[in-house]
Amino acid sequence: MVERRQPIQIDEAVERVMAYPLEVRTENVSIVQSYGRIVADDLRASHPVPSFNRSPYDGFAIRSVDTASASRETPVLFRVIGEIGAGQVFQSEVGEYEAVRIMTGAMIPTGCDAVIMLELVHEKNSSEIDIKRQVKHHDNISFIGEDTEEGEIIAKAGSLIHPGIIAQLATFGVANVSVAAQPVVGILATGSELVDVNEPLEPGKIRNSNAYMVAAQVLRAGGIPVMLGHVEDKIEPCMKIIREQLHKVDLMITTGGASVGDFDLVPEIVKQLEAETLFNKVAMRPGSVTTAAATKSGKLLFGLSGNPGACFVGFELFARPVIRRSQRAKAHLPLSKGTLGVDFPKPNPFTRLIRGKLEEATGEHIVYPSGLDKSGSVVSLAEADVLILLPGGTRGYEKGDKVDVLILNSIEGSDSSWEKFFKS
Amino acid sequence: MVERRQPIQIDEAVERVMAYPLEVRTENVSIVQSYGRIVADDLRASHPVPSFNRSPYDGFAIRSVDTASASRETPVLFRVIGEIGAGQVFQSEVGEYEAVRIMTGAMIPTGCDAVIMLELVHEKNSSEIDIKRQVKHHDNISFIGEDTEEGEIIAKAGSLIHPGIIAQLATFGVANVSVAAQPVVGILATGSELVDVNEPLEPGKIRNSNAYMVAAQVLRAGGIPVMLGHVEDKIEPCMKIIREQLHKVDLMITTGGASVGDFDLVPEIVKQLEAETLFNKVAMRPGSVTTAAATKSGKLLFGLSGNPGACFVGFELFARPVIRRSQRAKAHLPLSKGTLGVDFPKPNPFTRLIRGKLEEATGEHIVYPSGLDKSGSVVSLAEADVLILLPGGTRGYEKGDKVDVLILNSIEGSDSSWEKFFKS
Repeated sequence: MVERRQPIQIDEAVERVMAYPLEVRTENVSIVQSYGRIVADDLRASHPVPSFNRSPYDGFAIRSVDTASASRETPVLFRVIGEIGAGQVFQSEVGEYEAVRIMTGAMIPTGCDAVIMLELVHEKNSSEIDIKRQVKHHDNISFIGEDTEEGEIIAKAGSLIHPGIIAQLATFGVANVSVAAQPVVGILATGSELVDVNEPLEPGKIRNSNAYMVAAQVLRAGGIPVMLGHVEDKIEPCMKIIREQLHKVDLMITTGGASVGDFDLVPEIVKQLEAETLFNKVAMRPGSVTTAAATKSGKLLFGLSGNPGACFVGFELFARPVIRRSQRAKAHLPLSKGTLGVDFPKPNPFTRLIRGKLEEATGEHIVYPSGLDKSGSVVSLAEADVLILLPGGTRGYEKGDKVDVLILNSIEGSDSSWEKFFKS
Repeated sequence: MVERRQPIQIDEAVERVMAYPLEVRTENVSIVQSYGRIVADDLRASHPVPSFNRSPYDGFAIRSVDTASASRETPVLFRVIGEIGAGQVFQSEVGEYEAVRIMTGAMIPTGCDAVIMLELVHEKNSSEIDIKRQVKHHDNISFIGEDTEEGEIIAKAGSLIHPGIIAQLATFGVANVSVAAQPVVGILATGSELVDVNEPLEPGKIRNSNAYMVAAQVLRAGGIPVMLGHVEDKIEPCMKIIREQLHKVDLMITTGGASVGDFDLVPEIVKQLEAETLFNKVAMRPGSVTTAAATKSGKLLFGLSGNPGACFVGFELFARPVIRRSQRAKAHLPLSKGTLGVDFPKPNPFTRLIRGKLEEATGEHIVYPSGLDKSGSVVSLAEADVLILLPGGTRGYEKGDKVDVLILNSIEGSDSSWEKFFKS
């Protein structure tokens, strides 16, 4: 029995799954383990940076007032009364016509209000220097709080932790970082035609590539994939695994069993789980037959197509943002612009998402389909770095048309891609 | 004693370190562990895909010749002699006016040369259908090798393994993937001003943020960082650690001890190791005082500045490409174009690399400095997503000028950024 499916628009489908956000959990990880994780809560500076007035150069700390009469013709003599290495604190106060040799990053000694760079000074001997120019009040001092004031946000919740953010965390002594916990995503492939990656092919069979692909998509989105193997197109073995595993995961993804044909498992799974169908058809190609459902315990189930291209797109559009949002990260693939490198003459009532390659030519982004534009093509997935968006309608598209593209390999996300797409 | 330093251009410095490539090693990892790793050797298709002629739709497999007279007015009756589920092989040959119900992805039965989609057929009863249109020879058949032919390259050496490539690996049964081994990078911070990330600040001190930042940069480049702690600005403790650890790592990085001041450790380290200095000054800001040296045993040593901005840039320009190249990956940060959002009126004889933010405005990339443009600023690193390149010379730059930018958070790299930059 084939259930009647009513297609809805992509943005509406996205909205429906985002209304069922996963629980946001946090955990602490050591700073050395934090690269690539996502900041769970706004982090604030626990002290100003610099935390003391310091010298940005190697030079001499002085009182600027003592250079008032200095010039090339009338140099002023300073007595060098000591030196301050990095990390040292000069213990006495610096007086009139006294100078202290100071290293880059060292603390300005009491009494001094300026630093003159080493290169601009004439060192007469180990204890005397001549200064031949006026030095201004506050010259060459990096002031307390100049970089960051105490209490400033140093990393916003949802930020991906990259090297620059790690430098911030270390600077402020955040040895343990509160990061978003990674949601656990169960992945089950269905299909009597499937053999596993380590099994030999047989006539009529193909290898289970979708589960491995989805696992990598889960990793890219920041989740933890749990491989639940593959089962034939029968409801019993499928439900057995889902019932055993559902409570262990945050999200369950099936791939396959979602065609309009006789072996359409997904509606039956949804029914047996007494889950609420959020949608079971989306006005897009590939991936129109994509299902999302919410169980009573608040878990999301995605029934993705068994077709590699459709499965890929269904994940990126609907499962990815849920996984990302549960880590407070920007949810969606970022939207950008491109210029079509080829014609797409055939109109399609549904919005098309073409796996594409982006080429940079004289400042312009030209986009081409990557490999065969068939939803079953795996090679086109391997080469794709964008999804080219062609809104559905009664006309085709021509080479040179400006189009929207979704960037696949971005490590940052976007909060508003679909809004922008459907309003543009 | 301060060694005389002769600045060289960035591209020349890059060339000198790239002439000392690290050894390329490979290792096998399970496909489920391969996400984010780099393909070590060209991988070729071990069989065609599809590996059999298959149906791209749910429908009926027929002999197209039998529909020659079919029309709306004169439907042709076919006898349904069986069905082929996914993964099944139909055992007998299909004859005149016979049809076999076929599922998406299933193997075309012997005798048939076309498929008609389910929606286009009138099912009279469970064993008879009417076809009301002509079906062409080879209609709706996905042919053997249509997606990939046997022997085609499915993933090139140096490719980053992303979900689309994993789909390819799984399709061809590559359960264990030969990937580039991750080079091991020792990281030692020097500086008497340093306290560790878990220690309280004291007057005049700062936390060791560079080592953690560099560790994350190493991870981003695909290497394995080994934290060697921090030592005061003295040659003995520094050499002790370097001598103990050098044979355990592929690459050694020090940060700090590289100023032009009195505590300039790096030349002494190079000397004691009897290493060959490749360069010790680069015509760039920040990071002009960056050293690279090659030991007799063929290991590279990088002496990066203790200044966070200079350290960051020194790593990305010189250490990153070595780490990436040793994995056969595209070595350099990719170059792109941007439009300056602010003036940089002051000319500089050295090429400047401004930590910047890229904003997208109506298809144009506008670039701004991120935070304080001082080399010591850590906040500007946290917010940077590009390095804005301002070639050295006698003039400044104005808002609106087109400039080159290096993309920091790209997961792909470039083989030729510096070539392009210095020739453009």
